[in-house]
Amino acid sequence: MKHQMETEILKAEVLIEAIPYIRRFAGSIVVVKYGGSAMVDENLKKSVIQDIAMLKYIGLKPVVVHGGGKEITSLLDRLGKKSEFLDGLRVTDEETAQVAEMVLSGSIAKALVDELEGVGIKAVGISGKDGRTMLCSKKLDEKGRDLGFVGQIDKVDTSLLDTLLANNFVPVVSPVGVDGMGNTYNINADYAASAVAGALSAQKLMFLTDVEGILKDKDDPASILRSLNKGQALAYIADGTIKGGMIPKVQCCIDGLEKGVESVHVLDGRVSHAILLEIFTTKGIGTMVTDKESV
Amino acid sequence: MKHQMETEILKAEVLIEAIPYIRRFAGSIVVVKYGGSAMVDENLKKSVIQDIAMLKYIGLKPVVVHGGGKEITSLLDRLGKKSEFLDGLRVTDEETAQVAEMVLSGSIAKALVDELEGVGIKAVGISGKDGRTMLCSKKLDEKGRDLGFVGQIDKVDTSLLDTLLANNFVPVVSPVGVDGMGNTYNINADYAASAVAGALSAQKLMFLTDVEGILKDKDDPASILRSLNKGQALAYIADGTIKGGMIPKVQCCIDGLEKGVESVHVLDGRVSHAILLEIFTTKGIGTMVTDKESV
Amino acid sequence: MKHQMETEILKAEVLIEAIPYIRRFAGSIVVVKYGGSAMVDENLKKSVIQDIAMLKYIGLKPVVVHGGGKEITSLLDRLGKKSEFLDGLRVTDEETAQVAEMVLSGSIAKALVDELEGVGIKAVGISGKDGRTMLCSKKLDEKGRDLGFVGQIDKVDTSLLDTLLANNFVPVVSPVGVDGMGNTYNINADYAASAVAGALSAQKLMFLTDVEGILKDKDDPASILRSLNKGQALAYIADGTIKGGMIPKVQCCIDGLEKGVESVHVLDGRVSHAILLEIFTTKGIGTMVTDKESV
Amino acid sequence: MKHQMETEILKAEVLIEAIPYIRRFAGSIVVVKYGGSAMVDENLKKSVIQDIAMLKYIGLKPVVVHGGGKEITSLLDRLGKKSEFLDGLRVTDEETAQVAEMVLSGSIAKALVDELEGVGIKAVGISGKDGRTMLCSKKLDEKGRDLGFVGQIDKVDTSLLDTLLANNFVPVVSPVGVDGMGNTYNINADYAASAVAGALSAQKLMFLTDVEGILKDKDDPASILRSLNKGQALAYIADGTIKGGMIPKVQCCIDGLEKGVESVHVLDGRVSHAILLEIFTTKGIGTMVTDKESV
Amino acid sequence: MKHQMETEILKAEVLIEAIPYIRRFAGSIVVVKYGGSAMVDENLKKSVIQDIAMLKYIGLKPVVVHGGGKEITSLLDRLGKKSEFLDGLRVTDEETAQVAEMVLSGSIAKALVDELEGVGIKAVGISGKDGRTMLCSKKLDEKGRDLGFVGQIDKVDTSLLDTLLANNFVPVVSPVGVDGMGNTYNINADYAASAVAGALSAQKLMFLTDVEGILKDKDDPASILRSLNKGQALAYIADGTIKGGMIPKVQCCIDGLEKGVESVHVLDGRVSHAILLEIFTTKGIGTMVTDKESV
Amino acid sequence: MKHQMETEILKAEVLIEAIPYIRRFAGSIVVVKYGGSAMVDENLKKSVIQDIAMLKYIGLKPVVVHGGGKEITSLLDRLGKKSEFLDGLRVTDEETAQVAEMVLSGSIAKALVDELEGVGIKAVGISGKDGRTMLCSKKLDEKGRDLGFVGQIDKVDTSLLDTLLANNFVPVVSPVGVDGMGNTYNINADYAASAVAGALSAQKLMFLTDVEGILKDKDDPASILRSLNKGQALAYIADGTIKGGMIPKVQCCIDGLEKGVESVHVLDGRVSHAILLEIFTTKGIGTMVTDKESV
Repeated sequence: MKHQMETEILKAEVLIEAIPYIRRFAGSIVVVKYGGSAMVDENLKKSVIQDIAMLKYIGLKPVVVHGGGKEITSLLDRLGKKSEFLDGLRVTDEETAQVAEMVLSGSIAKALVDELEGVGIKAVGISGKDGRTMLCSKKLDEKGRDLGFVGQIDKVDTSLLDTLLANNFVPVVSPVGVDGMGNTYNINADYAASAVAGALSAQKLMFLTDVEGILKDKDDPASILRSLNKGQALAYIADGTIKGGMIPKVQCCIDGLEKGVESVHVLDGRVSHAILLEIFTTKGIGTMVTDKESV
Repeated sequence: MKHQMETEILKAEVLIEAIPYIRRFAGSIVVVKYGGSAMVDENLKKSVIQDIAMLKYIGLKPVVVHGGGKEITSLLDRLGKKSEFLDGLRVTDEETAQVAEMVLSGSIAKALVDELEGVGIKAVGISGKDGRTMLCSKKLDEKGRDLGFVGQIDKVDTSLLDTLLANNFVPVVSPVGVDGMGNTYNINADYAASAVAGALSAQKLMFLTDVEGILKDKDDPASILRSLNKGQALAYIADGTIKGGMIPKVQCCIDGLEKGVESVHVLDGRVSHAILLEIFTTKGIGTMVTDKESV
Repeated sequence: MKHQMETEILKAEVLIEAIPYIRRFAGSIVVVKYGGSAMVDENLKKSVIQDIAMLKYIGLKPVVVHGGGKEITSLLDRLGKKSEFLDGLRVTDEETAQVAEMVLSGSIAKALVDELEGVGIKAVGISGKDGRTMLCSKKLDEKGRDLGFVGQIDKVDTSLLDTLLANNFVPVVSPVGVDGMGNTYNINADYAASAVAGALSAQKLMFLTDVEGILKDKDDPASILRSLNKGQALAYIADGTIKGGMIPKVQCCIDGLEKGVESVHVLDGRVSHAILLEIFTTKGIGTMVTDKESV
Repeated sequence: MKHQMETEILKAEVLIEAIPYIRRFAGSIVVVKYGGSAMVDENLKKSVIQDIAMLKYIGLKPVVVHGGGKEITSLLDRLGKKSEFLDGLRVTDEETAQVAEMVLSGSIAKALVDELEGVGIKAVGISGKDGRTMLCSKKLDEKGRDLGFVGQIDKVDTSLLDTLLANNFVPVVSPVGVDGMGNTYNINADYAASAVAGALSAQKLMFLTDVEGILKDKDDPASILRSLNKGQALAYIADGTIKGGMIPKVQCCIDGLEKGVESVHVLDGRVSHAILLEIFTTKGIGTMVTDKESV
Repeated sequence: MKHQMETEILKAEVLIEAIPYIRRFAGSIVVVKYGGSAMVDENLKKSVIQDIAMLKYIGLKPVVVHGGGKEITSLLDRLGKKSEFLDGLRVTDEETAQVAEMVLSGSIAKALVDELEGVGIKAVGISGKDGRTMLCSKKLDEKGRDLGFVGQIDKVDTSLLDTLLANNFVPVVSPVGVDGMGNTYNINADYAASAVAGALSAQKLMFLTDVEGILKDKDDPASILRSLNKGQALAYIADGTIKGGMIPKVQCCIDGLEKGVESVHVLDGRVSHAILLEIFTTKGIGTMVTDKESV
Repeated sequence: MKHQMETEILKAEVLIEAIPYIRRFAGSIVVVKYGGSAMVDENLKKSVIQDIAMLKYIGLKPVVVHGGGKEITSLLDRLGKKSEFLDGLRVTDEETAQVAEMVLSGSIAKALVDELEGVGIKAVGISGKDGRTMLCSKKLDEKGRDLGFVGQIDKVDTSLLDTLLANNFVPVVSPVGVDGMGNTYNINADYAASAVAGALSAQKLMFLTDVEGILKDKDDPASILRSLNKGQALAYIADGTIKGGMIPKVQCCIDGLEKGVESVHVLDGRVSHAILLEIFTTKGIGTMVTDKESV
């Protein structure tokens, strides 16, 4: 009995420890790019949902942007349509764009909404089509090749997002865009998250990934960079320290900063409660990228 | 030149003729059940979108609830899954429910949103999952048979619909529901429209169908009933005047009235601008069902 | 029966055609200077009232400024007081100003209000005295002669107009002003309309006149200028193309533009539904004067 | 110098004495029927305007309803039209109604507005036509005779009055009404004041008259009744104590009480600042009529 | 490093555990009667302040009512005035009431405000005098004896409390009241807390005491009653189970319930974070008294 | 009877005379520093309370900042603690600061609140601790000596004051401040009034003093300066015209102006209704200091 009380008191102290962080981030918009293992493993999934709910309950304003590449491939397979990639980017003909939209807007977003509602959070699944939130045009790849209906975001109209946030709904955004002529575009989810966070002037943009953070040596977790600023990030890319698949991720970080996000975080989505840990621990976890001169 | 002016003046007079109707319905919520031929024929489709836009522009508050049985069957076919029906009702196992959701919430609703945005209307596609708008449980068929994940609506939570309407968005609602335990339900679209209209205390609920209206003799368009009240409707069902596939439609009409809708309309969706015609002509078109003693 | 339906569908199509114009002008303030034949002929009168009502119903904010020279002369005659004019401008002693006020504020404005209320529009007749909307001082004529209580508007206080517009009333403004010392002034109605439109930053200012528009040759309707900008208007006055009674009208147009109105229109009030035609036809009717470099 | 200070201190004490009355009536709607000598004598006129301004400044909400019989007769005379009366009531043909409207709405109301604006009060002159504030039908006299366009008020729509009061404007109401068919009615001003006060649930309705108050003996000012309740008033009429021209006045008092006014006052408008005296003195002045059982 | 991460994850899980309680009490008004050891011991003091801050941060609306008997006695001693008690109640002459007010309103309330501000909570110290929040009259003791300026609360005016709560301030209320004639009253703090909680229709009223809760045997902590309803409480008082100093406490609980509080809690203020423990543990701690039939 | 009426009319005229001043100052924030004889003499006290109430009733927004040096000394005496002064400034150890706070926040402020409530004004006593309204640090005297807990105001946070004013409460502010580390500071009341008035951008700051105003010769009331501007004030200090105890008062005036107050007034608090006299007389009383070039 007495022991139980002591345990409870220890728990209360954990809550108390959270106060300075709650104070600091009250009212902040936090955009979470949700993808990778955290979308597959059931326990991690549950932990992400709980973390987002917690952010909402303590007064932050979370916005979720989700991915879903594996699920798209899976449905394409079932339909007998082969997924084609060019340097890792999906070639997206009209049919593929339509299948992707059904998976993203019709299945994944709604499932996330349902999980959030299950913990008492009001949530709404929207795509770039709803309220013309993300107006797109065709995006060529780095080499100037046309990959089909892959969207580059020309304009984020935040009026629907603003309405939902002001009325206490958590928006769950599918990376699907539209041009003014009836075409549907698949958008890279990291890039969509960065555009949405920028348009909302979010305090934080968090990428849930399958790596520890930004690593100098991709095979050595100990080589993680805890924080870096824009200049440093660009320098690391230039001198080859940051390379390969890490480059587009870092570019999305820089992109977010340039659009007005205060800090961008590359988190290890394989760790339980990665989102809460970033908010509630002194040094945060993963890598933080900011616009400040020296970090 | 002069002739052209006269034509223009005649057009202005048509606008002027609309004034008394605009006055009468300003601010009214009108729920449109969209389905049948009007969802297939490109011209009819365009006319429905224009009609809804017009309602919005002249100060009404339209809400769209759409169907999509053919599109669901089509995707199930492509996935090699046979659609099974029992007395005309789809047997819905978990996979079917998921496919239906992708088609309804991920494809049809978003396409309608895009068309409305194309004529300058702010629109948002939601399903019963968003904001837990339609909470469901399993619905047995008339004979008490379990058809799987076919939903009966236990509660409509209008808070998301209210938020969208108050902020000038047109809600496009997919007939997909959810229970509190993570299950997805396919809902009959007529029934969903009636539940939504009732919960919103809509002034009008309009069913776009592939018939002229409620007919005494289904093979004779001239046998159309222009208006009937609840008591008459029940009497016609009892005495066999209304029969077959018309019965569930009439029951949805009665259902809407009982939930608080002022008038329910069975319209011929094969006629261009059926919605506007109902609003802007003296006698309306199709069949009107009301709760009033004598019509 | 079927023929009737087809007629109705054609009418619906006319409504649909109006959508892009409704979109474009939603929420716009439109000031209509109402005078000339359109105030005398019963059919034209009715068409003006209907047009203003239609503007209101589809979401614009009309403001009416009316004239009334003939009615003033008529009452002065009945009172045995001879109307005296100097180069077409009424010499206005104190008694004349008082008679003019009674006719304008007490008879014409209230009759217009009643007609608007008759088609379901909330309307209020105000003069420059109410809420000190138009503060005046004496206006000398072009030759510097004192014509008595003819007002030059020194200040438009829009607080009453703003209150009425915000509460869905259509203001009907009589061209009567006041100075701070208890004197009543008769104001030229064109000039009052231009001042009010400017103070409200109206999107459109429309003059209902008894001519086709601005004509190069006043005897040849075909010489109408469809659109011209400020520079062109000034040039035409300078080179004598625009001359005589057309000059003050054009100066009111320029005046309106300089005070912030987007476009000013000289319409032929003898044509039914001239106001709606201006709003709802591609090229508009009459003459449009704007501030844009090239038209 | 010192003497001057003492005078000033005495004045401050007068202000201080007003506090309990200001407290008591803060926010109250007070309808003042303005007519009689107080509308003719320049000093009394000024005192009424000042009193109304003072009410506004200390937080009450005054509404003015004015008369103008003499001014109507005067204009009719100038127009060579003889005023005809039946038992003291004006026979009102269409022309008379139009002349009355011009005088009331176009001249008197606007002049009052200007005087109020002159002491810094925002004011607006309206008639029963504006916002259809007073909807009328024909009122027969006591003997059932048709006197022409003399209005009986069927409905007071307070939406315009409410808008003006909420936006700090003092409404100045002309006793002119309208039916739904374009006819203009002259309304007895006492009766209009009582209807407006009732519809606004005014705390006070004050009639400025040319008598000391309600007198038992019309020739003996000392026979004034300081206060009486509805029952007593009816009894005095029944037993002939109140008689002649005092009867319709007392009936308007009773009418006001029945429509929801808290207290009705018959004041001597020939006394300077009669309105303020009623508000700021312990026993008030003139006669107070209330609905309370015993006074 | 890894160990540290695991510790952090455990902490995150504690936060997550709190979600259902946060959901349940969001927006609730919680009145905390603060007194006893928790006001003396520095660590307990800090824990109370943190708990109140936490309630505020997660969306509850805490109101603090504090005591201060010891501090009053101490200042009276320093002033050479002997504290006199009658059956445990302080005899309160005018000077004592004034000293009590200075200690409560001038010292204790302001110190609490400062501590709350120190953890980022906006707080305001008020007494029953501010906004006439607690209007009092003299309260005789149980035996009908006059103890001086000991107040019985006749009316709680919540307008100041409502204003502060609506603007995100935590009210810190001193148990000092006032009558309408300039007299200051000392109020029993338990009683003041119960009156304030009732007037605010608080969800919870928590008494921080120096006992474990309501005990059947005051010397045996194991005899604690975990929950009881009003009927049971009255029965226990009647049969002598609850006796001595516990009686007034229980009467305050019943008093709170009768005034509309949902549940009243007698907590052991000697336990760290007693307030949070009550909110965030399944069964709560101390004794809960409710109005429900069976607990 | 008649004579009485005439007296009443004269009183009404006094009220009427006040109109232009009420117009001029409607909505203005007026900060009154309350101290000196006006806080001791019962009649003067009552007159100050009435004046503040009158300001509130006619639409101004008064804020009271009070002093209390004598009362602090008196309680220190009773506690056997000797008041120590250095060049007229109180040496303030921690105990003195605590006693001062109890007197100011716990006794004087609450008594003033009660008096204001007694005349129907909603009032709230706050100190610099409430809502951290006045954040302080240690203030050294002119010679750089440490006098203990004497506060210099580093920041005025007006959010609590704004909330109270917006909700019609009159704030009564005690000159007690706080630093971020739990220390309590005594603040010079003149200086606190000037800081509060500046932070609120008050129209007027009035110092109630025991002198006629700013005098050139302190022994000759006739040497009073009726008005002076900042430049003149500085010049008079520089050339020795203003000297001794008048210097800090004048510096507070200049301080207020520099922080944004429109005019600062040094009033003779020994004169009844000094506050109203300043507002309601043509030339005001005492000395007015403004920022205008020439006065």
